[in-house]
Amino acid sequence: MTHTRIKELLNSTEYGREVIVKGWIKTFRNNQFLALNDGSCLSNIQVVVDFESTDESILKRLTTGAAVAISGTFIASLGKGQRVEVKAHQITILGDSDPEKFPLQPKKHSLEFLREIAHLRFRTNTFNAVFKVRNALSFAIHRFFNEKGFVLIHTPIITGSDAEGAGEMFKVTTLDFDKIPQNEDGSINFKEDFFGKPTNLTVSGQLEGELAALAFGNIYTFGPTFRAENSNTTRHLAEFWMIEPEMAFYELKDNMDLAEELLKYVIRYALDNCTEEIEFLKNRLLEEEKSKPQNDRSALDLVDKLNFCLDNDFERLTYTEAIDILKHSKPNQKKQFKYIIEDWGADLQSEHERYLVEKHFKKPVILTDYPAAIKAFYMRMNEPDQQGRKTVAAMDILFPGIGEIVGGAQREERYDLLTQRMTEMHIPTEEMEWFLDTRRFGSVPHAGFGLGFERLVLFVTGMTNIRDVIPFPRTPKNAEF
Amino acid sequence: MTHTRIKELLNSTEYGREVIVKGWIKTFRNNQFLALNDGSCLSNIQVVVDFESTDESILKRLTTGAAVAISGTFIASLGKGQRVEVKAHQITILGDSDPEKFPLQPKKHSLEFLREIAHLRFRTNTFNAVFKVRNALSFAIHRFFNEKGFVLIHTPIITGSDAEGAGEMFKVTTLDFDKIPQNEDGSINFKEDFFGKPTNLTVSGQLEGELAALAFGNIYTFGPTFRAENSNTTRHLAEFWMIEPEMAFYELKDNMDLAEELLKYVIRYALDNCTEEIEFLKNRLLEEEKSKPQNDRSALDLVDKLNFCLDNDFERLTYTEAIDILKHSKPNQKKQFKYIIEDWGADLQSEHERYLVEKHFKKPVILTDYPAAIKAFYMRMNEPDQQGRKTVAAMDILFPGIGEIVGGAQREERYDLLTQRMTEMHIPTEEMEWFLDTRRFGSVPHAGFGLGFERLVLFVTGMTNIRDVIPFPRTPKNAEF
Repeated sequence: MTHTRIKELLNSTEYGREVIVKGWIKTFRNNQFLALNDGSCLSNIQVVVDFESTDESILKRLTTGAAVAISGTFIASLGKGQRVEVKAHQITILGDSDPEKFPLQPKKHSLEFLREIAHLRFRTNTFNAVFKVRNALSFAIHRFFNEKGFVLIHTPIITGSDAEGAGEMFKVTTLDFDKIPQNEDGSINFKEDFFGKPTNLTVSGQLEGELAALAFGNIYTFGPTFRAENSNTTRHLAEFWMIEPEMAFYELKDNMDLAEELLKYVIRYALDNCTEEIEFLKNRLLEEEKSKPQNDRSALDLVDKLNFCLDNDFERLTYTEAIDILKHSKPNQKKQFKYIIEDWGADLQSEHERYLVEKHFKKPVILTDYPAAIKAFYMRMNEPDQQGRKTVAAMDILFPGIGEIVGGAQREERYDLLTQRMTEMHIPTEEMEWFLDTRRFGSVPHAGFGLGFERLVLFVTGMTNIRDVIPFPRTPKNAEF
Repeated sequence: MTHTRIKELLNSTEYGREVIVKGWIKTFRNNQFLALNDGSCLSNIQVVVDFESTDESILKRLTTGAAVAISGTFIASLGKGQRVEVKAHQITILGDSDPEKFPLQPKKHSLEFLREIAHLRFRTNTFNAVFKVRNALSFAIHRFFNEKGFVLIHTPIITGSDAEGAGEMFKVTTLDFDKIPQNEDGSINFKEDFFGKPTNLTVSGQLEGELAALAFGNIYTFGPTFRAENSNTTRHLAEFWMIEPEMAFYELKDNMDLAEELLKYVIRYALDNCTEEIEFLKNRLLEEEKSKPQNDRSALDLVDKLNFCLDNDFERLTYTEAIDILKHSKPNQKKQFKYIIEDWGADLQSEHERYLVEKHFKKPVILTDYPAAIKAFYMRMNEPDQQGRKTVAAMDILFPGIGEIVGGAQREERYDLLTQRMTEMHIPTEEMEWFLDTRRFGSVPHAGFGLGFERLVLFVTGMTNIRDVIPFPRTPKNAEF
């Protein structure tokens, strides 16, 4: 007889049948009630042990964290607190767990402590819920794009191109650090390296994605990206996952519409498919916020916050309009911002984004048409405004508690304007001939954006540290497991 | 009015309506018939241009590769060769394509040439078909595991663990090659590196996957993996994608059943959802094989080969049985194998695998229970056979034309046997304490496997060089784009 997963039993009414369940012991009360979990869902099944007929040596081994196989009868529970239970006939210990040594005892552990034992934290309720939601969001993203006929493109992780300048890069090499080969002039002889030239870990699949979009129309990437930046914050990782759709024949408005539709689709999918997990995470957050001053607590609970996102249009406004709001805002006038907004052209800081989203509009915001000077070379140049100020057709989506979750733009499809901008920004066009070819041969208006996957998971799970929504976070001085 | 994708029009019967189509010109015949493609499907739509009412300067710019927007009437075609067409009223050139310079002219290009212009090869029929199939296979994999309640785990790409020994690794670093920091004793001071220690690109997510499986029950990974090996073959890449499911409470037979079910599911999905693409690839292969001697041609065409896989159980046999077959085989006795099979214990070479699959059984084969000496430390030790020979509960799936497409095993869940094996194989247990914890606390029988994604795509597309099924292949001395 094969074993039945606990999720199935908890939804079953086929009482009286003989079953085998396998899983890990969460608790064992009164020498009688085992709470058993097999990871298939958050809830445990209760197993009733007849301690009189069970060997003393077995009873002793029914400790938190131990793995067991139970043969028994599946019945409606007579006790309170659970609908069904398994009356055990036979208990087999699969793997012991020494209660003196197992770090996950049935009590509250801090998230900091659990991060140190990231290899075991999967077994806690919180991380079971977080990674189930992460899984659901990932699937929802693939389903969304599949329904729309987008083609998934696996853009390269190791790249010989470092022209995008999106951030500091990790080097990839097989050179021996003890004897780095040199050319006669003392420079490094990269001919001896694996790829015959310097290579790095990708910071974005966008440029390669554009190549594919200008053939397939609509494409998306979903892969890991890297930043070698010394940012030790709750919102930054050195290794994180991004989703980067790129669409031929899309202009800025189409781009915004798609991004908003995607975000709503995947949030709704998580609400529909992870009801138990999100309910658990809602209560976890309420509990966590009890220790905070009233003012710092969320106005909405997690479920309400997610529903609020679904029920409201994201606020769309230009950078110029945003600057106007910020300049006249209370925290700016009272000099409560760390960076006071004085002039058009200023880069927005996290405090400004949060003010717009959390205080002013109280909902997700899409900011568009940023000053050209603070945005990347590949964004499409707008007509200068009446005051002659240059902006690009960029759009960033800002979420409450998260800040920027999506960054995108209509791309500069005009060869002359693109190369002129690259020259101005000191980007070597000769290394980017392959990219420029898309503007030489059948160039079309197109647009795309990048969605930071971990930031999305942060938002939907209500967790507050990005290290807690990826299995094994990579941050400065930390690459454990 | 927004534009309509060509795939939709080709399936439509709503004649007489006004439409806008946008895409790239494949050909322009007789100053009258445009074949237009927007990447949404392999087929082009025919656009009929009224050359008398069209400006000469526009007509001249209707060249292969140019991008256009067409306003026109969608009608049933009167001509032969197409069911529907668009009668153009207005033609807008979106992006020119100089016929003197555009490398993709409407003629047959070699795959080698197209590899050099990988940024443009997406626009050919062959690569449109290949990457559509790749996309469908990827989605099918996610759907398969989602339906079964598996949890996707993103295992780390940058790893501080190099213990698995699955192959040569790429180093990841932010150290300055011009001045590698040294300790007083002359060794490299990795404290100055980004992660404070040496790090590499992952060769497999399996070990981290096991951690998650021993909490969630059933998990899978789908991510890039790396080998810094100097293999310039048609089956090896330095960067490739792997799917690695890992299942608690699974034994070897469950593992084989799941792998066979997965492979059949995704092949069926591709046949059902990429009918046009696979038909095209079938004909491409038939064409390619015309230049080969009769004996080297495939016995079955691509579609028949895929269906054959679906209709037959994979042949399952032990390594020991396979050695017996190979020893007595004609090529072994006639010394036609490069590596003659003499004794039990020999590692199987590609020629042996191909003989078993392509000549002896003529179908996919699952080989099990390999000699312990030639397999990894984490595979579960079987009871020694009657002659005292030690084997492990491994399984490899071999496919015609591909060789090993899946490698898997039941894992060694017994702490003592595992650590003993690690010591024998000189794997430092102290660096693997996190992995050993899974055997200390609630260890359970479990199993898993790795599926090489590009090899799967090779098989389903009938392509013969692995560089042609990944957008931008990374191989020794090659990291272009």
